[in-house]
Amino acid sequence: MRILIVYWHPEPQSFNGALLRRACETFTREGHDLRVSNLLDMGFDPVSDRRNFSTVSDPQYFKQQIEEIYATENNGFSAEIEGEQLKIEWCDLMIWQFPLWWFGLPAVMKGWVDRVFAMGRTYGNGRFYESGVFRGKKAMLSLTTGGPREAYLPGGFNGAIDGILRPIQRGMLEFVGFSVLQPHIIYGPAHLDEAQRRAQLEGFDLRLKNIFNEEPITVGSY
Amino acid sequence: MRILIVYWHPEPQSFNGALLRRACETFTREGHDLRVSNLLDMGFDPVSDRRNFSTVSDPQYFKQQIEEIYATENNGFSAEIEGEQLKIEWCDLMIWQFPLWWFGLPAVMKGWVDRVFAMGRTYGNGRFYESGVFRGKKAMLSLTTGGPREAYLPGGFNGAIDGILRPIQRGMLEFVGFSVLQPHIIYGPAHLDEAQRRAQLEGFDLRLKNIFNEEPITVGSY
Repeated sequence: MRILIVYWHPEPQSFNGALLRRACETFTREGHDLRVSNLLDMGFDPVSDRRNFSTVSDPQYFKQQIEEIYATENNGFSAEIEGEQLKIEWCDLMIWQFPLWWFGLPAVMKGWVDRVFAMGRTYGNGRFYESGVFRGKKAMLSLTTGGPREAYLPGGFNGAIDGILRPIQRGMLEFVGFSVLQPHIIYGPAHLDEAQRRAQLEGFDLRLKNIFNEEPITVGSY
Repeated sequence: MRILIVYWHPEPQSFNGALLRRACETFTREGHDLRVSNLLDMGFDPVSDRRNFSTVSDPQYFKQQIEEIYATENNGFSAEIEGEQLKIEWCDLMIWQFPLWWFGLPAVMKGWVDRVFAMGRTYGNGRFYESGVFRGKKAMLSLTTGGPREAYLPGGFNGAIDGILRPIQRGMLEFVGFSVLQPHIIYGPAHLDEAQRRAQLEGFDLRLKNIFNEEPITVGSY
């Protein structure tokens, strides 16, 4: 199967980095085709504006969705953006590996979505949600938190993790047609000892080995 | 009163730009003290890493929260970040003006949060939510959407806007102690005609004139 991992964390030695490396080992060992968008190594620029495009539809007024439709019809995405779109179009499974920051994606990951998910190319013209461009593909969030599991239970300190992740799982992934797998969440890796971290990496390996047998979850709308 | 507006949109002539200019006119006319973080004009860099700091606690391993605590104790934030923190500490009311992108903040606004909301300085050590550093201050989201109002009702095309905004209002603003005012939402300004847009700007002016009489909403947890 064809797998794309999109990753960002400012510290390569972080547990997110370890999870990325482990996923690469697992998928390679299992004989899958793997591509990685390591947004740290790429120095990916998260600012969305005319830099997304080589074409210009309206030079007087920048309306991003108009430019995206025009670029879709005129091969006008910048090489950086086109490259990411091609990876999504290529894959069967997309994994986002990131630390949960402020109840959401870190800015670099969010900028990847802002710039790469483009009207015309990845959604629009009646192609949303169940009719989305990427229907048939699966996606999974793989994330770490600062706080412990109990902080993310319903009524917990930060509240239920499902609600916190819904804008990402529903508003980004399902919006463009992905079926969403159960998120893989490591709570508070900074508070685990070495043996516990190794056990988490083994559990991740085991899950990824069998991931193509998993059924999508129902994220649900609001 | 002292008001901080944090703003980003890639097109200055956008309706977000018009809302920013109108807010500045209104608050100036009403005699308030106003500061604006126009993240577009500032060319604000949304990438969070060692560039946030002039100090280094651990040169071998970058753990952002450790560096933030160290910077708090050693006057070690970069001038760019320190300047934004001082504005938040100064204000009575903070307004975020932005287009809702992918059910969330555009990356540049998210990067402002990732970098400026720093452990030690703006939260932590028992200071969260009701005990947050900025308790007594108010905040309001002022945003535009692409879709119409009915798309953001419970069970609507995108689902209830309250749930979509909760990670921002609860996980960012209330987390650091702000009381949150009812968000000001302009649905689908691209589909309004000139008279309707003028009416929306007048309505915004009217609301802002009386905003210091408003009671906070209950965002609620998950």
